[in-house]
Amino acid sequence: MNQRCNETKVMRDPIHEYIHVDYQIIWDLINAREFQRLRRIHQMGTSYQVYHTAEHSRFAHSLGVYEIIRRMVNEVKGLDAFLSEVEKIQIMCAGLLHDLGHGPFSHFFESILTPNHEQLTAMIILGDSDIHRILVKYASDLPEQIVSILNHSHPNKVMSRMISSQLDADRMDYLLRDAYFTGTSYGTFDLERILRTLRIIEDRLVIKESGVHSVEDYIMARYHMYWQVYYHPTSRSIEAILYAFFNRMRDLIVKNPRYLDDYPMFQFLKPDHEITLKEHYQLDESSCFYGFQCASDDEDKILSDLAVRILERKLFDYADFSSSDDYALMKLRLIDLGFDPIYYLYMDKAEKRPYSPYNEDTNLIYILMPDKTIRELSQVSAIVNAVVYGQAKTEMKLFYPKEVNK
Amino acid sequence: MNQRCNETKVMRDPIHEYIHVDYQIIWDLINAREFQRLRRIHQMGTSYQVYHTAEHSRFAHSLGVYEIIRRMVNEVKGLDAFLSEVEKIQIMCAGLLHDLGHGPFSHFFESILTPNHEQLTAMIILGDSDIHRILVKYASDLPEQIVSILNHSHPNKVMSRMISSQLDADRMDYLLRDAYFTGTSYGTFDLERILRTLRIIEDRLVIKESGVHSVEDYIMARYHMYWQVYYHPTSRSIEAILYAFFNRMRDLIVKNPRYLDDYPMFQFLKPDHEITLKEHYQLDESSCFYGFQCASDDEDKILSDLAVRILERKLFDYADFSSSDDYALMKLRLIDLGFDPIYYLYMDKAEKRPYSPYNEDTNLIYILMPDKTIRELSQVSAIVNAVVYGQAKTEMKLFYPKEVNK
Amino acid sequence: MNQRCNETKVMRDPIHEYIHVDYQIIWDLINAREFQRLRRIHQMGTSYQVYHTAEHSRFAHSLGVYEIIRRMVNEVKGLDAFLSEVEKIQIMCAGLLHDLGHGPFSHFFESILTPNHEQLTAMIILGDSDIHRILVKYASDLPEQIVSILNHSHPNKVMSRMISSQLDADRMDYLLRDAYFTGTSYGTFDLERILRTLRIIEDRLVIKESGVHSVEDYIMARYHMYWQVYYHPTSRSIEAILYAFFNRMRDLIVKNPRYLDDYPMFQFLKPDHEITLKEHYQLDESSCFYGFQCASDDEDKILSDLAVRILERKLFDYADFSSSDDYALMKLRLIDLGFDPIYYLYMDKAEKRPYSPYNEDTNLIYILMPDKTIRELSQVSAIVNAVVYGQAKTEMKLFYPKEVNK
Amino acid sequence: MNQRCNETKVMRDPIHEYIHVDYQIIWDLINAREFQRLRRIHQMGTSYQVYHTAEHSRFAHSLGVYEIIRRMVNEVKGLDAFLSEVEKIQIMCAGLLHDLGHGPFSHFFESILTPNHEQLTAMIILGDSDIHRILVKYASDLPEQIVSILNHSHPNKVMSRMISSQLDADRMDYLLRDAYFTGTSYGTFDLERILRTLRIIEDRLVIKESGVHSVEDYIMARYHMYWQVYYHPTSRSIEAILYAFFNRMRDLIVKNPRYLDDYPMFQFLKPDHEITLKEHYQLDESSCFYGFQCASDDEDKILSDLAVRILERKLFDYADFSSSDDYALMKLRLIDLGFDPIYYLYMDKAEKRPYSPYNEDTNLIYILMPDKTIRELSQVSAIVNAVVYGQAKTEMKLFYPKEVNK
Repeated sequence: MNQRCNETKVMRDPIHEYIHVDYQIIWDLINAREFQRLRRIHQMGTSYQVYHTAEHSRFAHSLGVYEIIRRMVNEVKGLDAFLSEVEKIQIMCAGLLHDLGHGPFSHFFESILTPNHEQLTAMIILGDSDIHRILVKYASDLPEQIVSILNHSHPNKVMSRMISSQLDADRMDYLLRDAYFTGTSYGTFDLERILRTLRIIEDRLVIKESGVHSVEDYIMARYHMYWQVYYHPTSRSIEAILYAFFNRMRDLIVKNPRYLDDYPMFQFLKPDHEITLKEHYQLDESSCFYGFQCASDDEDKILSDLAVRILERKLFDYADFSSSDDYALMKLRLIDLGFDPIYYLYMDKAEKRPYSPYNEDTNLIYILMPDKTIRELSQVSAIVNAVVYGQAKTEMKLFYPKEVNK
Repeated sequence: MNQRCNETKVMRDPIHEYIHVDYQIIWDLINAREFQRLRRIHQMGTSYQVYHTAEHSRFAHSLGVYEIIRRMVNEVKGLDAFLSEVEKIQIMCAGLLHDLGHGPFSHFFESILTPNHEQLTAMIILGDSDIHRILVKYASDLPEQIVSILNHSHPNKVMSRMISSQLDADRMDYLLRDAYFTGTSYGTFDLERILRTLRIIEDRLVIKESGVHSVEDYIMARYHMYWQVYYHPTSRSIEAILYAFFNRMRDLIVKNPRYLDDYPMFQFLKPDHEITLKEHYQLDESSCFYGFQCASDDEDKILSDLAVRILERKLFDYADFSSSDDYALMKLRLIDLGFDPIYYLYMDKAEKRPYSPYNEDTNLIYILMPDKTIRELSQVSAIVNAVVYGQAKTEMKLFYPKEVNK
Repeated sequence: MNQRCNETKVMRDPIHEYIHVDYQIIWDLINAREFQRLRRIHQMGTSYQVYHTAEHSRFAHSLGVYEIIRRMVNEVKGLDAFLSEVEKIQIMCAGLLHDLGHGPFSHFFESILTPNHEQLTAMIILGDSDIHRILVKYASDLPEQIVSILNHSHPNKVMSRMISSQLDADRMDYLLRDAYFTGTSYGTFDLERILRTLRIIEDRLVIKESGVHSVEDYIMARYHMYWQVYYHPTSRSIEAILYAFFNRMRDLIVKNPRYLDDYPMFQFLKPDHEITLKEHYQLDESSCFYGFQCASDDEDKILSDLAVRILERKLFDYADFSSSDDYALMKLRLIDLGFDPIYYLYMDKAEKRPYSPYNEDTNLIYILMPDKTIRELSQVSAIVNAVVYGQAKTEMKLFYPKEVNK
Repeated sequence: MNQRCNETKVMRDPIHEYIHVDYQIIWDLINAREFQRLRRIHQMGTSYQVYHTAEHSRFAHSLGVYEIIRRMVNEVKGLDAFLSEVEKIQIMCAGLLHDLGHGPFSHFFESILTPNHEQLTAMIILGDSDIHRILVKYASDLPEQIVSILNHSHPNKVMSRMISSQLDADRMDYLLRDAYFTGTSYGTFDLERILRTLRIIEDRLVIKESGVHSVEDYIMARYHMYWQVYYHPTSRSIEAILYAFFNRMRDLIVKNPRYLDDYPMFQFLKPDHEITLKEHYQLDESSCFYGFQCASDDEDKILSDLAVRILERKLFDYADFSSSDDYALMKLRLIDLGFDPIYYLYMDKAEKRPYSPYNEDTNLIYILMPDKTIRELSQVSAIVNAVVYGQAKTEMKLFYPKEVNK
C-alpha cells in the first residue's frame, strides 16, 4: 500500500502550484474511470452560467482536496503521533475520492436523485467499480476504511475531520479554487498560515491563536462566496428551470413509461428505480446536455420549451418574495399567459451562516490559546461571534418566465 | 445600431477584470443560441486532459477578444480618424463572433470536418441563424460587413488586422487566458503597455518603439505556450485517439450506411454530406462525449476500444520518430499484438516559429521608430531576429498503444 | 490651470497598473522638492521592521491616492453635475498633496511634533514653498482652495469626502498598497467594483446596493490590517524606543540647551520652538537615522543606548497589561536592573473598530437601495452591524527591555 | 552549529510566501547590526527614482537568497550525497551574508569606493564585526569557510555555484523580487520548476531537459529586466549626478583637506585612505542623504548645485552618443552656459547579453538530456543560442543638464 512512484509525479495547478503524487495507489485512483468521469461535471453546478469563467470541474477540486490533505499529513506538527503511514495514505485516498458520487450540476442533482452524493460515493467505493478493484489490490479492507472516514464512523475522528468539518480540506480548496476561477477576490485567505498554525490535540484539529485572523478571514471568505457567488439568483434561476425540466419528465413517464425510450440517458428517472453504478457512471453533464438537445425537439411543448431554455440560457426572472399573496398573484398571471405554474413558478429560500457553533458540536473550530487552554472560535473572535449571534441573512425569491414582464 | 444599453453591463473576468458591454447589439449577440453553444466547447481542445484546470470555453475567450477590441477602439490614440462609430461596432461584433464556427475539441475537428471553422463562422453569420436575425435587425448589410472583416476582404484593412494578424486581439486574449487557466506563467505579457503604444499609421497597426520590449515578451510568450502547452505530446496523443475513432466510424459507415442510425449526433459524417447549420449547432463536446458513451458498447471492437480509451483517458504512448524504419518496426509490433496500425499508429509533426516575417507579408508587426520611420519587428529586435532566422524547432513523434511496451 | 501634458504621462504602479498624469500642474507638483521629500519617509512608519518588505514610501502612496481620485472624477457616473473641470483638478491636487506634512515614521512623529501632519500640510501649501509657487502660477486662490478641501471647510462637501471619509481614496489606496507590500492577503478588496457602484447623491458619496459586499470586504480588510499589521506589537515596540529616544533628547536639552549643537537635524526639538518649513523639509528618515548614528556615540548612556537599539533593532519585549500591579512590579524590576523606567517602560493601548457610525456622522458610508432610499451601511449589512455593535477589541501592553527576562 | 530554533521562525515575504528559519545561527546573523544595516540600502540602487515602488532593500533580497538556498539544500534531489548538514548550514550562511559589503546605491558605489563589495563582504566576515563574533561562536573556522564559498576558492564547487553562477540563488531572487516591486511582468519565471528539475552531477548544477523552457524563460527575464529596468537611462542619469557629486567632493578635498570637517559621513573619501569597518557600517543611504542635505548649503556652487539636483531629482537629460563630435559639441555648449563639463557631462555605455557562454566557462548552465549526456544550454536551446550568437545590444548615451535644451 505504501508503494511509492519511481519519481514524484506533479500536475500544475494554479491554486497549489503543483499537485504532488508520491504513492502509486493515488496515481492509479486518479486514472480510474470513475475518477476521470469527474472531468465531465462542473465544480460549481450552474454558476458558470453566471461567472462565465467558473468552468472548472470536480476533477480539479478533488485533486486539490487531496493535495491539502497531503500537505496536512506531511506538514502539520505532531501529526505523526496520531497517524501511521498507512492511515496517512488512507486519508489521502479518502480526500481524493470524497466527491465520486456527485451527479451533474453538483448539489442540484440531489434534489432529483434519491441517494445523496455521499451515499453514492460509498456505493462506488464498496461496489463493482474500477476504484474498488484498485483499492482492494492494495489492501482488502481499504474500501471499508475509506468509507468509514468519509461517513465519520472511523474511530480516529481526526481523519474524518480533516476532510469534513467546519475547517476542512474540502472547504479550503473549493473557496480558493472557486475564487480563482470566478475571478473574484472574495474567497481568498491565507492557507499557508492556517496549515502552519494547525495542531492536533486529542482528537481535534485546533488552530494556534496566532492563526485566528487567518481563520476569521476564511470564515468571511465563506460568507462572501455564499452570498456573492453560490447563492447568486441567476444561478438559482437556472436551477429552477432544470428542476422544472426533470419534474416534467417524471410526470410524463408516470403517464407513459415508454417515454424514456427516447431518453436512454435518463433511465434513472424510472419510478421506484434505484440508480445502478453503470447508470451513474454515464450520468454526467455531457449526457444531460445531449438529453436536453433531444428534448428540444420533443412533442411535449412544456418539456421542449424547458430544454430550449436550458440550452439557450433563457433564464427565469426573479423577484423578492415577501408574502403568500405574491405567490398567488404570480400564479394567476402565469395561468393567464398560458404557463403551467407547476413548472413555471418556483420559490426558493437561501439562508446561510458562514459558521454555526450550534448544531455541529463535534466539528467546530477550536483555538489553542497561549495558556494552552482550548476555546471554541466564536468565544475568541469578536467578528465570528458577531456573525454567529447576529441576525442571519435570509433571502426568499420567486422565479418565473421573463414573459411575465412584457 | 448604435443603441446603447441603459447601463453598461459588466461580466467579471479574471483576465480583463470585467467585460464591458455598452451596446444593445452586443448584448443580444451574447445571448444568441449559437453564441451560447460555445460554452460547450473547450477553448484549448484536448489540453484540459494535460493541464487539468485548462477547462475554459470558447465562450469565455470570445468575450475576451471582444473586450480587447472594445478597448482598442476606445483607447488607441488617433483611431477616430480611421473608424466611424458604426465601424467600431462592426469590428466589436466581428471580434465577438469570430469563433462561432468552431467544432468540438477546437482545431482538432478541422481534420474531421470539411468546411474549416472560418467558413462555418461565415455560414452561421450569413445563414439561417439567430445570430443572422439579430444582425439584420440592426442593419441589413451587417452580416456581410462582418464576414468581410473576418475574411480580410473588407476595404478597411485595419479592421481585419485588429482581429487577425501577427499581433491581434485573438492571440492576445488566448495567450493570457490560456496561461491563467493552465496556471503557467509562460503566456504573460504586458497587454496594457501594448495597448498604450499601439498606433494606426496608414492602414497598419504599429507599435511605438517604447513598446518593443512588450512585443518581444508577447512573441516569447507565444513561443513558450506553443512548446510547453499547445504542442504537449500528451495532448497530441489524445488527438491521435480521437482521430482514429472518427476514422474508424467513417470506415464502418462506408461499409454499412445504417451504422449511423445508432449515432444521431454523428450524422455529419455521412459521405458526401455537407454539414447543416442545425447539425453544427448540435455538434458540441456534450454530444460527442455522449456519442463516445454509446460507442463504448458498440459491437465493433475497434470502435468501442477507442471510445473507452477516450472516456477513460487511456492514452497512447509516444516516441521520437527519426526514420521510416521506426515506423515500419512499430507497425510490425502492433500487428503482432493484434492492433490494426491504420487506427493504432499515428505520426505527427509539430513545427512552429512564434513569428515569421516571410509568408504573411501584410500582417506583420511594425514598429514606429523615434524618427517616425516604420520598421518591421525583426529588423528592430535582436531577439525576434534570432528567433526568425535561427533554426526552427521541429518535433516528430509516433503515437501507439501503451500495450506495446509491456 | 487645465493645461494638458503633450501626452499622458504614465508611471508603472503595481496597485493601479499605471498612474496617469494628464495635466501639467500635476506633473509639476510631483516634481516639486517638498513632494520628492516624501520618498524619504516610509508609508507604514516602523512596520517595515516587522514586515521586511513593507518598505514603500509616502511618495508612492500619494501618487496612488491621486490616481484613485483621478479615476473617480473620470469614471463615477453623474459626477459632472457636481464638479466642474477646475474643481476636478483641485481635488486631484488635494489628493496628491494630502500627506505633504508627514514627518519621519509617519504617524509616530505626531507624538513628538506639535503641529499635526494636517496642519503642516496646510503650512506648506500656503507658505514659502515650491508647492505654493507652482499652485499660484496656475491660479492665485488654488492654495486656499486645496487647504479648504483638505480641512473639510470647502462648501462642496463631496470634494472633501473623496479624500477623507469612511470610504475615501486615501484609505482605499493604503489598504491595497500595504497589503501588496507586506505580502499579506488581508487588505484586498474589489476597488473596481466600488468605483463602479459609487454614485453622488446630494453631497454624499453613496454605494449602490449591488456593491455592498465589496464594501463589507473593504471594512473587513481594514479590520484585519489594523490588528494583523498596523497594531503589530513589534511595531509598537519600536515606536516605544523611538519615543524614549526623543523624550531623553528633550530632557537633555532642557538641562543644557547647547546639547543640540551636535544634532543640527534635531533643532525642531528646541523648547517653545515652532518648526520652520526649512526644518520640516530637512526632517526625513535619512536625517533621523543619521542623527541616531551620531547619538550612538553620545556621552549620555541612555541616549546612546536607545540610539543603538533603534539602529540595530534591539527591540523591547512586551507583555499583556492587566492591572496597575503589573506596571508597578515591572518598574521595580527595571530599577533593580539599572534601567530608568521613565525611558524604559512604556504602556500602550490599541483599540480600533474598522468602522464606527457614532462619532463621524457626516462622513459615514451610505448605501443606495433598489427603492432609491439611502441607508447607512450598518443598517444594511449584518456583518458591519455586528462589528459596530459588538465588543470592541482592545489590547493593552507593557513594553520593556528584553534584559528583564534574562 | 546545527542547533535548531525551538520552533521554525517565519517571515512573510511576497516572493517566497515565507522565509523559514530553522537554525539558531541564521536567526542570530539576521539580528546582527551589519546585517540590519542592509535595511538602509536600496536593492536596486537608483531605480526607485524611475520605478517609484522599487523601494525594497538589500535586507529583503538577502533573506530571499537565503530562502532559495534553504530550499535547494532541502529539496534538490540527490543533494545529500554532496553536502553534509554542516556544509548545508555554511552555504545558507553564505547566501544570507553575500551582500554585506554593499555600499549606498548598491553597485554605483563601487565606482567611488576602492574595495569592491565582495572584498568588503569578506572584510566584515573576517574582521572585527558582530557577524564575525556570531560565526566563531558556532565554529572557529566558519568565517573562512564562508568567505571561501563566496570567492569560489572552496574545494566543493557546488556550494559556490549555488550562490554565484549563471543560474544561482542570487539572480533568481533579484529577478523575481525586482519584478514584483517595480510592478513589471518582465522578470517572472517558474522558480518552482527550476528547483524541481535541478540536479547535481559531479560538481555541477544541471537542469533536467524537462526544465529547459523554464530556464529559457529565466534567461529572457534577465534580458528584459536589464534593458527595461536596470539600464533605464533615467536611472543612469541619476548615477551620473551622484558620480559628479563625489567627484567634485574629492577635488575639493584635494585642494583643502579640511573640507571634510563638515562632512563626517564622507570621511572615507580621504585620499589614500582605506575605509574602516566602522566607516563602512555608518555608510548607508541615510548618511549619504543627510550629507547631500548639508552640501545643499555648501559655499561651493558646483557641489551645492549637484546636491540639490540629487535631493530634488532634477535629472540630467540624455541623448544617443554616435560620434566624438557629439561629445565635443556638447562640451562647448556647456561651457557657453557656464557649466564645467568635468562634472556636467557624462558618457555611459550599456551593453549586456543575458547569458554568455564564452568567458565564464566554469559557471555555465548545463542541461541533463534524456540520454544522460550533459550539454551546455546554448547547444540545446535555439532561443538562447540566438541570443548568444546574435548581435549584442549596445547603447551609448551622453548625459547633461536639462538647461542645455532651453
